[in-house]
Amino acid sequence: MKSSLRCRRLLVVVLAAALAIGVRAAAQTDPLPSWNDGPAKTAIVEFVRTTTTQGSPQFVSPAERIATFDQDGTLWVEQPMYAQVMYCLERVPAVVKAKPELAQVQPFKTVMSGNREAIARLSMKDLEKILAATLTGMSTDEFRAEAKTWLETARDPRWKRPYTELTYQPMQEVLKYVRASGYRTYIVTGGGQDFVRVYAEEVYGIPPEQVVGTVGGTKYGYDKSGKPFLLKEPRLLLNDDHAGKPEGIHLMIGRRPRAAFGNSAGDRQMLEYTKAGDGPRLAMLVLHDDATREYAYGPAKGLPNSRVGTFPQSLYDQAGRQGWVLISMKNDWKQVFSFDK
Amino acid sequence: MKSSLRCRRLLVVVLAAALAIGVRAAAQTDPLPSWNDGPAKTAIVEFVRTTTTQGSPQFVSPAERIATFDQDGTLWVEQPMYAQVMYCLERVPAVVKAKPELAQVQPFKTVMSGNREAIARLSMKDLEKILAATLTGMSTDEFRAEAKTWLETARDPRWKRPYTELTYQPMQEVLKYVRASGYRTYIVTGGGQDFVRVYAEEVYGIPPEQVVGTVGGTKYGYDKSGKPFLLKEPRLLLNDDHAGKPEGIHLMIGRRPRAAFGNSAGDRQMLEYTKAGDGPRLAMLVLHDDATREYAYGPAKGLPNSRVGTFPQSLYDQAGRQGWVLISMKNDWKQVFSFDK
Repeated sequence: MKSSLRCRRLLVVVLAAALAIGVRAAAQTDPLPSWNDGPAKTAIVEFVRTTTTQGSPQFVSPAERIATFDQDGTLWVEQPMYAQVMYCLERVPAVVKAKPELAQVQPFKTVMSGNREAIARLSMKDLEKILAATLTGMSTDEFRAEAKTWLETARDPRWKRPYTELTYQPMQEVLKYVRASGYRTYIVTGGGQDFVRVYAEEVYGIPPEQVVGTVGGTKYGYDKSGKPFLLKEPRLLLNDDHAGKPEGIHLMIGRRPRAAFGNSAGDRQMLEYTKAGDGPRLAMLVLHDDATREYAYGPAKGLPNSRVGTFPQSLYDQAGRQGWVLISMKNDWKQVFSFDK
Repeated sequence: MKSSLRCRRLLVVVLAAALAIGVRAAAQTDPLPSWNDGPAKTAIVEFVRTTTTQGSPQFVSPAERIATFDQDGTLWVEQPMYAQVMYCLERVPAVVKAKPELAQVQPFKTVMSGNREAIARLSMKDLEKILAATLTGMSTDEFRAEAKTWLETARDPRWKRPYTELTYQPMQEVLKYVRASGYRTYIVTGGGQDFVRVYAEEVYGIPPEQVVGTVGGTKYGYDKSGKPFLLKEPRLLLNDDHAGKPEGIHLMIGRRPRAAFGNSAGDRQMLEYTKAGDGPRLAMLVLHDDATREYAYGPAKGLPNSRVGTFPQSLYDQAGRQGWVLISMKNDWKQVFSFDK
């Protein structure tokens, strides 16, 4: 073999290797592999790039990098019923066992009847009674243990999987991507703060101190052995929905978010508040327009539960006026769940 | 010169250099240079060492490393009056200017009189009226700007320095040391959450989201131009003192601290709650026993203001029973303030 030929062959091998590494590097550097190319993906990537590149006119100091995420319908499935409401309904038998007099009292009587249609027709006031009875009156440690056990055994009616597996893979990628870029990720949910804290660290990598939710008071006291504990009281401190979301953000974080993600009218004020700050701000809304892979509701037709995920035309209009970016589940997401192939 | 001699000289030079480096390294590695050797310093260093050394039976995972610090009397001077109360009293003229009808109404009339003795005699109820009038009724942004301006210009009556310079150097070292060891440091104060957030990041390196304090509700609304803002309301959500401290810790952090520092009866429940957890826990109390360099009060004689820093005998007794470690300002601290020489 002539030396020039050997040399050329070597060059080919080296180039091929370089190309392979290059391709692998490019694949590794797509931070959002479950997203199709399009305006939503571009908005996220561009926001992160411009706010974290030193010298960029849009640069945001690490201390100011706060991103907030609604949970139900934004990070995981909220239909046909919020997981936490399922928890409360399924806790009712245990509550009735402890207080048998409730068996004949509404709305507990209806829940105990097992009549799904009657349960679905319960009023907000009835649901509040059920929430108070199942989420308060125990210590924070007891509540945590009960909710943890339930989450391990309960199954969603459609996918027959634990609720904690029904998180959206593309949103999990957003959480990881913005965290890797120095953003602190917070859940800001209308759901119960203590409930979401039970699993948020394991499921989303979000620690308890970064969960902002609807929250009641606790009362410090001592058990019979003199050991201190916190009793969960039926005393609302914050209803972390609608206007309560920016109020909760101020209470718990004390800084205006740089990025906020929601999916319904309950997130309107959080997105407004986020976008009203100076400098670069990102506001995004997940649209549930995929009846095949998930559900179509809100602005789409075929609402499974009219109480959940309301999305009036005015929210659409405001998104357009204020530069909020819409995420179409159908078009923007290659994959919805981690268990989709 | 014989080669063995040259060799020996070289050895001496190398040893001397090594020794110099060693001494410098030892000086650099004392994380608490303003502390005298003694049980308090040892307790802190041992706690950090055993909870952060991989393989130690006392090892605490990074996620669980939470340390909470009372502020007034623990991180900075609280005598003769809490800085925030000084702020409120000094804001009264501006409030009266905006609402002239208050000039003839108590307790505003007394404050406007400038009679220091009469002001010192104001009841808690009167002080609460002053706090409500000066800390609420404006937007969170307006409040922040007002408090910031005051902090830049106000001077402590004894040292004639900005209040923000009256932090304890030894405690600043503890904050930095435990943070360098992976602990997240929180302020847990009876003072106003929004007030302390104004300076905590600059003064203590503690960001707004890690300040837990007494906190009122806010109300989300829009100004004339349609821009959203949060109005500070006179509606108490949490009185973050005594039993309110563990309640506030649960609300804002959602984890039991591994270490807690206080100085008065208002910190009792926070220290109890901290020590009641499993595994290694550190609870410490600063004793104000240094009338020369700071003040002597609480368990010591000569209380300047009986409203501030109460320290009953029962707290002393409980510290002994529950293994809380006392910090004697007089004996444990080489230096009190950064401006001490």
